Amino acid sequence: MNPTPRLTSASAPLVQDVSVVDEYGARRIISIPAERALTVFVDKRELVTLMTLGAAPELLVLGYLRNQRLVESLADIDSITVDWDVNAAAVKTRAGIERFDEKTAKRIVTTGCGQGTVFGDLMNELDTLHLPRVDDPRSRLSQATLYGLLNAMRVQESTYKSSGSVHGCALFCQDQLLTFVEDVGRHNAIDTIAGWMWLHGVQGADKIFYTTGRLTSEMVIKSAQMSVPIVVSRSGITQMGLELAQRLRMALFGRATNRHFICYCGFERFDAQPEPARPAPV
Amino acid sequence: MNPTPRLTSASAPLVQDVSVVDEYGARRIISIPAERALTVFVDKRELVTLMTLGAAPELLVLGYLRNQRLVESLADIDSITVDWDVNAAAVKTRAGIERFDEKTAKRIVTTGCGQGTVFGDLMNELDTLHLPRVDDPRSRLSQATLYGLLNAMRVQESTYKSSGSVHGCALFCQDQLLTFVEDVGRHNAIDTIAGWMWLHGVQGADKIFYTTGRLTSEMVIKSAQMSVPIVVSRSGITQMGLELAQRLRMALFGRATNRHFICYCGFERFDAQPEPARPAPV
Repeated sequence: MNPTPRLTSASAPLVQDVSVVDEYGARRIISIPAERALTVFVDKRELVTLMTLGAAPELLVLGYLRNQRLVESLADIDSITVDWDVNAAAVKTRAGIERFDEKTAKRIVTTGCGQGTVFGDLMNELDTLHLPRVDDPRSRLSQATLYGLLNAMRVQESTYKSSGSVHGCALFCQDQLLTFVEDVGRHNAIDTIAGWMWLHGVQGADKIFYTTGRLTSEMVIKSAQMSVPIVVSRSGITQMGLELAQRLRMALFGRATNRHFICYCGFERFDAQPEPARPAPV
Repeated sequence: MNPTPRLTSASAPLVQDVSVVDEYGARRIISIPAERALTVFVDKRELVTLMTLGAAPELLVLGYLRNQRLVESLADIDSITVDWDVNAAAVKTRAGIERFDEKTAKRIVTTGCGQGTVFGDLMNELDTLHLPRVDDPRSRLSQATLYGLLNAMRVQESTYKSSGSVHGCALFCQDQLLTFVEDVGRHNAIDTIAGWMWLHGVQGADKIFYTTGRLTSEMVIKSAQMSVPIVVSRSGITQMGLELAQRLRMALFGRATNRHFICYCGFERFDAQPEPARPAPV
Protein backbone atom coordinates (compact mmCIF):
# COMPACT_ATOMS: atom_id res chain seq x y z
CA MET A 1 0.00 0.00 0.00
CA ASN A 2 1.27 3.43 -0.95
CA PRO A 3 1.76 6.02 1.73
CA THR A 4 -0.93 8.69 1.72
CA PRO A 5 0.09 12.36 1.76
CA ARG A 6 -0.40 14.19 5.00
CA LEU A 7 -2.83 17.06 4.51
CA THR A 8 -3.83 19.95 6.74
CA SER A 9 -7.53 20.89 6.99
CA ALA A 10 -7.25 24.60 6.54
CA SER A 11 -10.74 25.55 5.54
CA ALA A 12 -11.86 29.12 6.12
CA PRO A 13 -15.11 31.12 6.16
CA LEU A 14 -16.79 30.77 2.77
CA VAL A 15 -18.83 33.94 2.78
CA GLN A 16 -18.35 37.50 3.85
CA ASP A 17 -21.02 40.06 4.72
CA VAL A 18 -20.85 43.35 2.90
CA SER A 19 -22.93 46.51 2.97
CA VAL A 20 -24.53 47.49 -0.34
CA VAL A 21 -27.09 49.94 -1.72
CA ASP A 22 -29.95 48.75 -3.90
CA GLU A 23 -32.29 50.38 -6.40
CA TYR A 24 -34.54 51.63 -3.59
CA GLY A 25 -31.60 53.55 -2.14
CA ALA A 26 -31.71 51.19 0.82
CA ARG A 27 -28.51 50.10 2.47
CA ARG A 28 -28.52 46.41 3.31
CA ILE A 29 -26.16 43.58 4.18
CA ILE A 30 -25.63 40.74 1.75
CA SER A 31 -23.26 37.80 1.63
CA ILE A 32 -20.64 37.47 -1.05
CA PRO A 33 -18.31 34.51 -1.56
CA ALA A 34 -14.92 34.71 0.05
CA GLU A 35 -11.93 34.71 -2.26
CA ARG A 36 -8.34 34.18 -1.29
CA ALA A 37 -5.04 34.05 -3.06
CA LEU A 38 -3.29 30.74 -2.45
CA THR A 39 0.31 30.57 -3.61
CA VAL A 40 1.49 27.03 -4.18
CA PHE A 41 5.09 26.17 -3.42
CA VAL A 42 6.50 22.80 -4.45
CA ASP A 43 9.59 21.91 -2.45
CA LYS A 44 9.93 25.61 -1.66
CA ARG A 45 9.74 26.67 -5.32
CA GLU A 46 6.83 28.93 -6.25
CA LEU A 47 4.53 27.26 -8.76
CA VAL A 48 1.38 29.32 -9.13
CA THR A 49 -1.10 31.55 -7.32
CA LEU A 50 -4.69 30.32 -7.34
CA MET A 51 -7.66 32.48 -6.42
CA THR A 52 -10.00 30.27 -4.43
CA LEU A 53 -13.04 30.21 -2.20
CA GLY A 54 -10.94 28.14 0.19
CA ALA A 55 -13.37 25.34 0.98
CA ALA A 56 -10.89 22.51 0.49
CA PRO A 57 -7.52 24.01 -0.39
CA GLU A 58 -5.47 20.83 0.14
CA LEU A 59 -7.63 18.86 -2.29
CA LEU A 60 -7.47 21.77 -4.73
CA VAL A 61 -3.68 21.72 -4.69
CA LEU A 62 -3.63 17.94 -4.97
CA GLY A 63 -5.96 17.98 -7.97
CA TYR A 64 -4.09 20.86 -9.56
CA LEU A 65 -0.80 18.96 -9.38
CA ARG A 66 -2.55 15.93 -10.78
CA ASN A 67 -4.42 17.65 -13.61
CA GLN A 68 -1.37 19.63 -14.65
CA ARG A 69 0.49 16.32 -14.76
CA LEU A 70 3.15 17.62 -12.44
CA VAL A 71 2.96 14.61 -10.11
CA GLU A 72 2.29 11.09 -11.31
CA SER A 73 1.68 9.14 -8.15
CA LEU A 74 0.08 10.01 -4.85
CA ALA A 75 3.03 8.33 -3.18
CA ASP A 76 5.31 11.03 -4.59
CA ILE A 77 3.72 13.60 -2.29
CA ASP A 78 4.80 13.65 1.31
CA SER A 79 2.54 16.45 2.55
CA ILE A 80 0.46 19.50 1.66
CA THR A 81 0.37 22.20 4.29
CA VAL A 82 -1.98 25.14 3.83
CA ASP A 83 -1.55 28.20 6.03
CA TRP A 84 -4.08 30.98 5.48
CA ASP A 85 -2.02 33.34 7.64
CA VAL A 86 0.43 33.55 4.79
CA ASN A 87 -1.92 32.43 1.99
CA ALA A 88 0.42 29.63 1.05
CA ALA A 89 0.26 25.93 0.30
CA ALA A 90 3.55 24.13 0.84
CA VAL A 91 3.84 20.90 -1.09
CA LYS A 92 6.61 18.57 0.02
CA THR A 93 7.45 15.79 -2.40
CA ARG A 94 9.36 12.67 -1.51
CA ALA A 95 11.89 12.91 -4.29
CA GLY A 96 11.33 16.18 -6.16
CA ILE A 97 9.58 16.67 -9.48
CA GLU A 98 11.44 15.65 -12.59
CA ARG A 99 11.71 18.20 -15.37
CA PHE A 100 9.88 20.80 -13.25
CA ASP A 101 10.88 23.76 -15.43
CA GLU A 102 9.98 22.01 -18.64
CA LYS A 103 6.59 20.90 -17.35
CA THR A 104 5.65 24.38 -16.21
CA ALA A 105 6.96 26.25 -19.23
CA LYS A 106 4.16 25.92 -21.79
CA ARG A 107 0.93 27.83 -21.50
CA ILE A 108 -2.37 27.38 -23.23
CA VAL A 109 -4.81 30.10 -22.41
CA THR A 110 -8.21 28.53 -22.48
CA THR A 111 -11.77 29.62 -22.45
CA GLY A 112 -13.50 29.63 -19.14
CA CYS A 113 -14.41 33.10 -18.27
CA GLY A 114 -10.74 33.53 -18.00
CA GLN A 115 -7.59 32.85 -19.74
CA GLY A 116 -6.88 29.58 -18.03
CA THR A 117 -3.56 27.95 -17.77
CA VAL A 118 -2.86 24.42 -18.77
CA PHE A 119 0.74 23.51 -18.42
CA GLY A 120 2.34 20.89 -20.52
CA ASP A 121 0.95 19.16 -23.52
CA LEU A 122 -2.54 18.24 -22.50
CA MET A 123 -3.84 18.46 -26.03
CA ASN A 124 -1.19 16.06 -27.21
CA GLU A 125 -2.09 13.78 -24.36
CA LEU A 126 -5.68 13.38 -25.53
CA ASP A 127 -5.07 10.20 -27.45
CA THR A 128 -3.52 8.55 -24.45
CA LEU A 129 -6.59 9.12 -22.28
CA HIS A 130 -8.54 5.95 -21.69
CA LEU A 131 -12.27 6.34 -21.39
CA PRO A 132 -14.60 3.37 -21.01
CA ARG A 133 -16.14 1.97 -24.19
CA VAL A 134 -19.55 3.27 -25.17
CA ASP A 135 -21.12 -0.18 -24.72
CA ASP A 136 -19.71 -0.52 -21.20
CA PRO A 137 -22.87 -0.77 -19.07
CA ARG A 138 -21.17 1.15 -16.23
CA SER A 139 -20.68 4.15 -18.46
CA ARG A 140 -24.21 4.86 -19.56
CA LEU A 141 -26.87 7.25 -18.34
CA SER A 142 -30.62 6.88 -18.44
CA GLN A 143 -33.01 9.79 -18.60
CA ALA A 144 -34.50 8.80 -15.22
CA THR A 145 -31.04 8.79 -13.62
CA LEU A 146 -30.28 12.16 -15.18
CA TYR A 147 -33.45 13.57 -13.60
CA GLY A 148 -32.48 12.03 -10.25
CA LEU A 149 -29.06 13.65 -10.47
CA LEU A 150 -30.54 17.04 -11.33
CA ASN A 151 -32.92 16.75 -8.42
CA ALA A 152 -30.04 15.96 -6.06
CA MET A 153 -28.32 19.14 -7.23
CA ARG A 154 -31.53 21.12 -6.79
CA VAL A 155 -31.80 20.25 -3.10
CA GLN A 156 -28.07 20.54 -2.34
CA GLU A 157 -27.25 23.31 0.14
CA SER A 158 -24.65 25.64 -1.27
CA THR A 159 -22.72 28.85 -1.03
CA TYR A 160 -24.23 29.69 -4.39
CA LYS A 161 -27.70 29.76 -2.85
CA SER A 162 -26.57 32.03 -0.01
CA SER A 163 -24.32 34.36 -1.92
CA GLY A 164 -24.17 33.56 -5.65
CA SER A 165 -21.11 34.09 -7.81
CA VAL A 166 -19.53 30.68 -7.36
CA HIS A 167 -19.36 27.62 -9.56
CA GLY A 168 -20.38 24.23 -8.29
CA CYS A 169 -19.13 20.83 -9.37
CA ALA A 170 -20.26 17.42 -8.25
CA LEU A 171 -19.34 13.81 -8.80
CA PHE A 172 -22.10 11.24 -9.11
CA CYS A 173 -22.32 7.48 -9.30
CA GLN A 174 -25.63 7.11 -11.10
CA ASP A 175 -27.87 9.58 -9.24
CA GLN A 176 -25.98 9.25 -5.96
CA LEU A 177 -24.01 12.37 -5.04
CA LEU A 178 -20.48 11.43 -3.95
CA THR A 179 -18.90 14.83 -3.47
CA PHE A 180 -19.78 18.45 -4.14
CA VAL A 181 -17.38 21.36 -4.34
CA GLU A 182 -17.79 25.06 -4.97
CA ASP A 183 -15.20 27.62 -5.87
CA VAL A 184 -14.96 31.09 -7.34
CA GLY A 185 -13.26 29.44 -10.31
CA ARG A 186 -14.88 26.43 -11.84
CA HIS A 187 -11.55 24.91 -12.80
CA ASN A 188 -10.62 25.05 -9.17
CA ALA A 189 -13.81 23.18 -8.35
CA ILE A 190 -13.09 20.39 -10.80
CA ASP A 191 -9.45 20.24 -9.72
CA THR A 192 -10.65 19.81 -6.14
CA ILE A 193 -12.85 16.91 -7.17
CA ALA A 194 -9.91 15.38 -9.03
CA GLY A 195 -7.88 15.71 -5.83
CA TRP A 196 -10.64 14.03 -3.84
CA MET A 197 -10.84 11.14 -6.32
CA TRP A 198 -7.09 10.72 -6.38
CA LEU A 199 -6.76 10.78 -2.61
CA HIS A 200 -9.50 8.20 -2.14
CA GLY A 201 -8.60 6.01 -5.11
CA VAL A 202 -11.98 6.61 -6.78
CA GLN A 203 -12.16 5.53 -10.43
CA GLY A 204 -14.03 7.58 -13.00
CA ALA A 205 -15.37 5.04 -15.47
CA ASP A 206 -18.75 4.60 -13.78
CA LYS A 207 -19.06 8.22 -12.64
CA ILE A 208 -20.89 11.26 -13.90
CA PHE A 209 -19.55 14.74 -13.55
CA TYR A 210 -21.87 17.71 -12.96
CA THR A 211 -20.89 21.35 -13.37
CA THR A 212 -22.80 24.60 -13.20
CA GLY A 213 -20.36 26.06 -15.73
CA ARG A 214 -20.16 25.77 -19.47
CA LEU A 215 -18.88 22.69 -21.24
CA THR A 216 -15.60 24.18 -22.42
CA SER A 217 -12.57 22.39 -23.78
CA GLU A 218 -10.88 22.54 -20.43
CA MET A 219 -13.81 21.00 -18.57
CA VAL A 220 -13.97 18.21 -21.12
CA ILE A 221 -10.23 17.54 -20.89
CA LYS A 222 -10.28 17.52 -17.12
CA SER A 223 -13.22 15.12 -17.02
CA ALA A 224 -11.39 12.87 -19.45
CA GLN A 225 -8.28 13.03 -17.29
CA MET A 226 -10.42 11.69 -14.47
CA SER A 227 -11.74 9.00 -16.90
CA VAL A 228 -15.28 10.28 -16.37
CA PRO A 229 -17.14 9.70 -19.66
CA ILE A 230 -20.35 11.65 -18.97
CA VAL A 231 -20.63 15.35 -18.14
CA VAL A 232 -23.80 17.24 -17.25
CA SER A 233 -23.98 21.02 -17.15
CA ARG A 234 -26.57 23.58 -16.17
CA SER A 235 -25.05 25.83 -18.84
CA GLY A 236 -24.29 25.51 -22.52
CA ILE A 237 -21.31 24.45 -24.57
CA THR A 238 -18.51 25.82 -26.67
CA GLN A 239 -17.33 24.47 -29.98
CA MET A 240 -13.97 23.19 -28.72
CA GLY A 241 -15.67 21.47 -25.81
CA LEU A 242 -17.97 19.69 -28.22
CA GLU A 243 -15.22 18.73 -30.66
CA LEU A 244 -13.00 17.28 -27.96
CA ALA A 245 -15.87 15.33 -26.41
CA GLN A 246 -16.82 13.89 -29.80
CA ARG A 247 -13.24 12.84 -30.40
CA LEU A 248 -13.11 11.20 -26.96
CA ARG A 249 -16.59 9.67 -27.40
CA MET A 250 -17.83 11.30 -24.22
CA ALA A 251 -21.48 12.17 -23.60
CA LEU A 252 -22.27 15.81 -22.88
CA PHE A 253 -25.57 17.14 -21.54
CA GLY A 254 -26.22 20.85 -21.21
CA ARG A 255 -29.00 23.29 -20.27
CA ALA A 256 -29.88 20.63 -17.73
CA THR A 257 -32.34 21.66 -15.04
CA ASN A 258 -35.52 20.07 -13.78
CA ARG A 259 -36.75 17.86 -16.63
CA HIS A 260 -35.06 19.76 -19.41
CA PHE A 261 -31.74 19.07 -21.10
CA ILE A 262 -29.91 18.90 -24.39
CA CYS A 263 -27.68 15.97 -25.26
CA TYR A 264 -24.92 17.44 -27.44
CA CYS A 265 -23.00 14.27 -28.18
CA GLY A 266 -22.44 10.70 -27.04
CA PHE A 267 -26.07 9.76 -27.68
CA GLU A 268 -24.93 6.13 -27.71
CA ARG A 269 -24.22 6.33 -23.98
CA PHE A 270 -27.74 7.62 -23.31
CA ASP A 271 -30.84 5.56 -22.58
CA ALA A 272 -33.61 7.95 -23.55
CA GLN A 273 -36.99 7.71 -21.90
CA PRO A 274 -38.53 10.61 -23.76
CA GLU A 275 -40.99 12.98 -22.21
CA PRO A 276 -44.45 12.91 -23.82
CA ALA A 277 -44.47 15.18 -26.82
CA ARG A 278 -45.17 18.84 -26.27
CA PRO A 279 -48.83 19.59 -26.92
CA ALA A 280 -49.23 21.26 -30.30
CA PRO A 281 -50.16 24.93 -30.12
CA VAL A 282 -53.92 25.35 -30.49
CA MET B 1 1.34 61.59 -35.08
CA ASN B 2 2.28 58.06 -34.23
CA PRO B 3 2.06 55.43 -36.93
CA THR B 4 -0.92 53.11 -36.50
CA PRO B 5 -0.39 49.35 -36.63
CA ARG B 6 -1.58 47.61 -39.75
CA LEU B 7 -4.27 45.07 -38.87
CA THR B 8 -5.93 42.36 -40.90
CA SER B 9 -9.72 41.91 -40.62
CA ALA B 10 -9.85 38.17 -40.16
CA SER B 11 -13.25 37.68 -38.64
CA ALA B 12 -14.86 34.29 -39.02
CA PRO B 13 -18.32 32.72 -38.57
CA LEU B 14 -19.42 33.25 -34.97
CA VAL B 15 -21.84 30.36 -34.67
CA GLN B 16 -21.96 26.76 -35.76
CA ASP B 17 -25.03 24.58 -36.22
CA VAL B 18 -25.01 21.27 -34.41
CA SER B 19 -27.47 18.40 -34.14
CA VAL B 20 -28.66 17.60 -30.61
CA VAL B 21 -31.28 15.48 -28.86
CA ASP B 22 -33.61 17.00 -26.29
CA GLU B 23 -35.75 15.66 -23.45
CA TYR B 24 -38.52 14.73 -25.89
CA GLY B 25 -36.11 12.45 -27.75
CA ALA B 26 -36.34 14.83 -30.68
CA ARG B 27 -33.31 15.54 -32.80
CA ARG B 28 -32.99 19.20 -33.66
CA ILE B 29 -30.46 21.72 -34.89
CA ILE B 30 -29.22 24.45 -32.58
CA SER B 31 -26.50 27.08 -32.84
CA ILE B 32 -23.50 27.06 -30.57
CA PRO B 33 -20.77 29.69 -30.44
CA ALA B 34 -17.69 29.07 -32.52
CA GLU B 35 -14.43 28.69 -30.67
CA ARG B 36 -10.98 28.76 -32.15
CA ALA B 37 -7.47 28.47 -30.89
CA LEU B 38 -5.42 31.53 -31.78
CA THR B 39 -1.71 31.23 -31.16
CA VAL B 40 -0.03 34.59 -30.81
CA PHE B 41 3.52 34.99 -32.09
CA VAL B 42 5.47 38.13 -31.32
CA ASP B 43 8.32 38.64 -33.74
CA LYS B 44 8.07 34.92 -34.55
CA ARG B 45 8.29 33.87 -30.89
CA GLU B 46 5.29 32.00 -29.52
CA LEU B 47 3.61 33.93 -26.71
CA VAL B 48 0.31 32.30 -25.86
CA THR B 49 -2.66 30.42 -27.28
CA LEU B 50 -6.03 32.10 -26.74
CA MET B 51 -9.36 30.33 -27.22
CA THR B 52 -11.67 32.83 -28.86
CA LEU B 53 -14.96 33.30 -30.63
CA GLY B 54 -12.99 35.09 -33.30
CA ALA B 55 -15.13 38.19 -33.75
CA ALA B 56 -12.28 40.68 -33.66
CA PRO B 57 -9.03 38.76 -33.26
CA GLU B 58 -6.70 41.64 -34.12
CA LEU B 59 -8.21 43.87 -31.44
CA LEU B 60 -8.08 40.94 -29.00
CA VAL B 61 -4.35 40.51 -29.60
CA LEU B 62 -3.79 44.25 -29.38
CA GLY B 63 -5.65 44.47 -26.07
CA TYR B 64 -3.94 41.38 -24.74
CA LEU B 65 -0.50 42.83 -25.42
CA ARG B 66 -1.62 46.06 -23.81
CA ASN B 67 -3.27 44.57 -20.71
CA GLN B 68 -0.35 42.22 -20.11
CA ARG B 69 1.90 45.27 -20.31
CA LEU B 70 4.01 43.66 -22.99
CA VAL B 71 3.84 46.67 -25.28
CA GLU B 72 3.83 50.24 -24.05
CA SER B 73 2.99 52.27 -27.10
CA LEU B 74 0.82 51.62 -30.12
CA ALA B 75 3.69 52.94 -32.22
CA ASP B 76 5.81 49.96 -31.12
CA ILE B 77 3.59 47.63 -33.16
CA ASP B 78 4.13 47.47 -36.88
CA SER B 79 1.38 44.98 -37.73
CA ILE B 80 -0.92 42.23 -36.50
CA THR B 81 -1.74 39.58 -39.08
CA VAL B 82 -4.35 36.96 -38.23
CA ASP B 83 -4.64 33.90 -40.44
CA TRP B 84 -7.39 31.45 -39.51
CA ASP B 85 -5.99 28.86 -41.92
CA VAL B 86 -3.19 28.32 -39.45
CA ASN B 87 -4.95 29.71 -36.35
CA ALA B 88 -2.16 32.18 -35.79
CA ALA B 89 -1.74 35.86 -35.07
CA ALA B 90 1.64 37.22 -36.09
CA VAL B 91 2.62 40.40 -34.27
CA LYS B 92 5.45 42.34 -35.79
CA THR B 93 7.00 44.98 -33.56
CA ARG B 94 9.13 47.84 -34.78
CA ALA B 95 11.99 47.28 -32.36
CA GLY B 96 11.30 44.08 -30.42
CA ILE B 97 10.01 43.78 -26.86
CA GLU B 98 12.43 44.54 -24.07
CA ARG B 99 12.78 41.93 -21.33
CA PHE B 100 10.34 39.62 -23.13
CA ASP B 101 11.26 36.55 -21.11
CA GLU B 102 11.09 38.36 -17.82
CA LYS B 103 7.71 39.91 -18.58
CA THR B 104 6.16 36.60 -19.54
CA ALA B 105 7.66 34.53 -16.74
CA LYS B 106 5.34 35.20 -13.81
CA ARG B 107 1.89 33.71 -13.59
CA ILE B 108 -1.01 34.57 -11.39
CA VAL B 109 -3.88 32.20 -11.80
CA THR B 110 -7.01 34.16 -11.26
CA THR B 111 -10.64 33.53 -10.74
CA GLY B 112 -12.83 33.74 -13.75
CA CYS B 113 -14.26 30.39 -14.36
CA GLY B 114 -10.75 29.50 -15.12
CA GLN B 115 -7.28 29.81 -13.98
CA GLY B 116 -6.48 32.96 -15.83
CA THR B 117 -3.07 34.20 -16.63
CA VAL B 118 -1.81 37.63 -15.81
CA PHE B 119 1.78 38.12 -16.71
CA GLY B 120 3.99 40.49 -14.90
CA ASP B 121 3.30 42.36 -11.74
CA LEU B 122 -0.18 43.69 -12.23
CA MET B 123 -0.96 43.59 -8.56
CA ASN B 124 2.13 45.63 -7.80
CA GLU B 125 1.10 48.04 -10.51
CA LEU B 126 -2.20 48.87 -8.81
CA ASP B 127 -0.91 51.94 -7.03
CA THR B 128 0.36 53.40 -10.25
CA LEU B 129 -3.03 53.25 -11.93
CA HIS B 130 -4.64 56.64 -12.27
CA LEU B 131 -8.39 56.70 -11.99
CA PRO B 132 -10.37 59.93 -12.05
CA ARG B 133 -11.24 61.51 -8.71
CA VAL B 134 -14.61 60.63 -7.22
CA ASP B 135 -15.80 64.25 -7.48
CA ASP B 136 -14.88 64.45 -11.16
CA PRO B 137 -18.26 65.11 -12.81
CA ARG B 138 -17.26 63.03 -15.85
CA SER B 139 -16.81 59.97 -13.67
CA ARG B 140 -20.19 59.69 -12.05
CA LEU B 141 -23.29 57.67 -12.86
CA SER B 142 -26.92 58.51 -12.20
CA GLN B 143 -29.61 55.92 -11.66
CA ALA B 144 -31.43 57.09 -14.80
CA THR B 145 -28.27 56.70 -16.89
CA LEU B 146 -27.71 53.25 -15.42
CA TYR B 147 -31.23 52.26 -16.50
CA GLY B 148 -30.59 53.67 -19.96
CA LEU B 149 -27.39 51.66 -20.24
CA LEU B 150 -29.14 48.47 -19.15
CA ASN B 151 -31.87 49.08 -21.67
CA ALA B 152 -29.29 49.52 -24.44
CA MET B 153 -27.83 46.15 -23.51
CA ARG B 154 -31.28 44.58 -23.47
CA VAL B 155 -31.98 45.51 -27.08
CA GLN B 156 -28.47 44.76 -28.37
CA GLU B 157 -28.38 41.93 -30.93
CA SER B 158 -25.92 39.28 -29.88
CA THR B 159 -24.46 35.84 -30.37
CA TYR B 160 -25.57 35.18 -26.81
CA LYS B 161 -29.18 35.56 -27.84
CA SER B 162 -28.79 33.19 -30.78
CA SER B 163 -26.59 30.58 -29.19
CA GLY B 164 -25.81 31.34 -25.55
CA SER B 165 -22.54 30.41 -23.86
CA VAL B 166 -20.64 33.59 -24.55
CA HIS B 167 -19.78 36.59 -22.44
CA GLY B 168 -20.53 40.09 -23.58
CA CYS B 169 -18.71 43.30 -22.73
CA ALA B 170 -19.55 46.83 -23.70
CA LEU B 171 -18.13 50.29 -23.32
CA PHE B 172 -20.48 53.18 -22.64
CA CYS B 173 -20.20 56.95 -22.47
CA GLN B 174 -23.13 57.73 -20.19
CA ASP B 175 -25.90 55.56 -21.68
CA GLN B 176 -24.48 55.67 -25.21
CA LEU B 177 -23.09 52.35 -26.38
CA LEU B 178 -19.66 52.84 -27.98
CA THR B 179 -18.60 49.29 -28.66
CA PHE B 180 -19.83 45.81 -27.84
CA VAL B 181 -17.81 42.59 -27.96
CA GLU B 182 -18.58 38.98 -27.24
CA ASP B 183 -16.23 36.10 -26.71
CA VAL B 184 -16.21 32.62 -25.24
CA GLY B 185 -13.89 34.00 -22.58
CA ARG B 186 -14.90 37.20 -20.87
CA HIS B 187 -11.29 38.27 -20.39
CA ASN B 188 -10.93 38.04 -24.12
CA ALA B 189 -13.94 40.30 -24.49
CA ILE B 190 -12.52 42.97 -22.19
CA ASP B 191 -9.09 42.66 -23.80
CA THR B 192 -10.73 43.26 -27.17
CA ILE B 193 -12.38 46.42 -25.85
CA ALA B 194 -9.03 47.54 -24.47
CA GLY B 195 -7.55 46.97 -27.93
CA TRP B 196 -10.34 49.01 -29.51
CA MET B 197 -9.79 51.88 -27.06
CA TRP B 198 -6.07 51.83 -27.56
CA LEU B 199 -6.30 51.77 -31.33
CA HIS B 200 -8.74 54.67 -31.43
CA GLY B 201 -7.15 56.70 -28.64
CA VAL B 202 -10.29 56.53 -26.49
CA GLN B 203 -9.81 57.60 -22.86
CA GLY B 204 -11.52 55.75 -20.01
CA ALA B 205 -12.15 58.43 -17.40
CA ASP B 206 -15.65 59.32 -18.59
CA LYS B 207 -16.60 55.78 -19.63
CA ILE B 208 -18.57 52.97 -18.07
CA PHE B 209 -17.73 49.37 -18.57
CA TYR B 210 -20.48 46.72 -18.78
CA THR B 211 -19.91 42.98 -18.50
CA THR B 212 -22.22 40.00 -18.35
CA GLY B 213 -19.64 38.20 -16.19
CA ARG B 214 -18.84 38.44 -12.53
CA LEU B 215 -16.94 41.33 -11.00
CA THR B 216 -13.73 39.42 -10.29
CA SER B 217 -10.33 40.81 -9.41
CA GLU B 218 -9.20 40.47 -12.99
CA MET B 219 -12.16 42.37 -14.39
CA VAL B 220 -11.59 45.16 -11.89
CA ILE B 221 -7.88 45.34 -12.67
CA LYS B 222 -8.48 45.39 -16.39
CA SER B 223 -11.07 48.15 -16.08
CA ALA B 224 -8.65 50.14 -13.97
CA GLN B 225 -5.91 49.60 -16.57
CA MET B 226 -8.29 51.22 -19.04
CA SER B 227 -8.88 54.04 -16.48
CA VAL B 228 -12.59 53.22 -16.46
CA PRO B 229 -13.85 54.00 -12.94
CA ILE B 230 -17.34 52.48 -13.14
CA VAL B 231 -18.20 48.84 -13.89
CA VAL B 232 -21.68 47.38 -14.28
CA SER B 233 -22.33 43.65 -14.31
CA ARG B 234 -25.35 41.45 -14.88
CA SER B 235 -23.74 38.99 -12.44
CA GLY B 236 -22.41 39.19 -8.90
CA ILE B 237 -19.05 39.84 -7.34
CA THR B 238 -16.16 38.11 -5.64
CA GLN B 239 -14.33 39.28 -2.55
CA MET B 240 -11.07 40.14 -4.31
CA GLY B 241 -12.97 42.06 -6.96
CA LEU B 242 -14.65 44.11 -4.25
CA GLU B 243 -11.46 44.72 -2.25
CA LEU B 244 -9.51 45.89 -5.27
CA ALA B 245 -12.30 48.19 -6.39
CA GLN B 246 -12.55 49.71 -2.92
CA ARG B 247 -8.82 50.29 -2.88
CA LEU B 248 -9.00 51.92 -6.31
CA ARG B 249 -12.16 53.88 -5.38
CA MET B 250 -14.05 52.45 -8.32
CA ALA B 251 -17.84 52.07 -8.38
CA LEU B 252 -19.17 48.55 -8.94
CA PHE B 253 -22.76 47.67 -9.78
CA GLY B 254 -23.90 44.06 -9.97
CA ARG B 255 -27.08 42.00 -10.47
CA ALA B 256 -27.99 44.75 -12.88
CA THR B 257 -30.93 44.06 -15.18
CA ASN B 258 -34.04 46.07 -15.96
CA ARG B 259 -34.55 48.39 -13.01
CA HIS B 260 -32.71 46.28 -10.46
CA PHE B 261 -29.13 46.51 -9.28
CA ILE B 262 -26.84 46.43 -6.29
CA CYS B 263 -24.14 49.04 -5.78
CA TYR B 264 -21.30 47.23 -4.02
CA CYS B 265 -18.90 50.12 -3.61
CA GLY B 266 -18.08 53.59 -4.85
CA PHE B 267 -21.43 54.99 -3.68
CA GLU B 268 -19.87 58.46 -3.86
CA ARG B 269 -19.75 58.18 -7.66
CA PHE B 270 -23.45 57.37 -7.80
CA ASP B 271 -26.35 59.80 -8.07
CA ALA B 272 -29.22 57.78 -6.68
CA GLN B 273 -32.76 58.44 -7.83
CA PRO B 274 -34.35 55.74 -5.73
CA GLU B 275 -37.30 53.70 -6.89
CA PRO B 276 -40.45 54.20 -4.82
CA ALA B 277 -40.32 51.91 -1.81
CA ARG B 278 -41.53 48.38 -2.27
CA PRO B 279 -45.16 48.12 -1.12
CA ALA B 280 -45.32 46.53 2.30
CA PRO B 281 -46.71 42.99 2.32
CA VAL B 282 -50.43 43.04 3.14
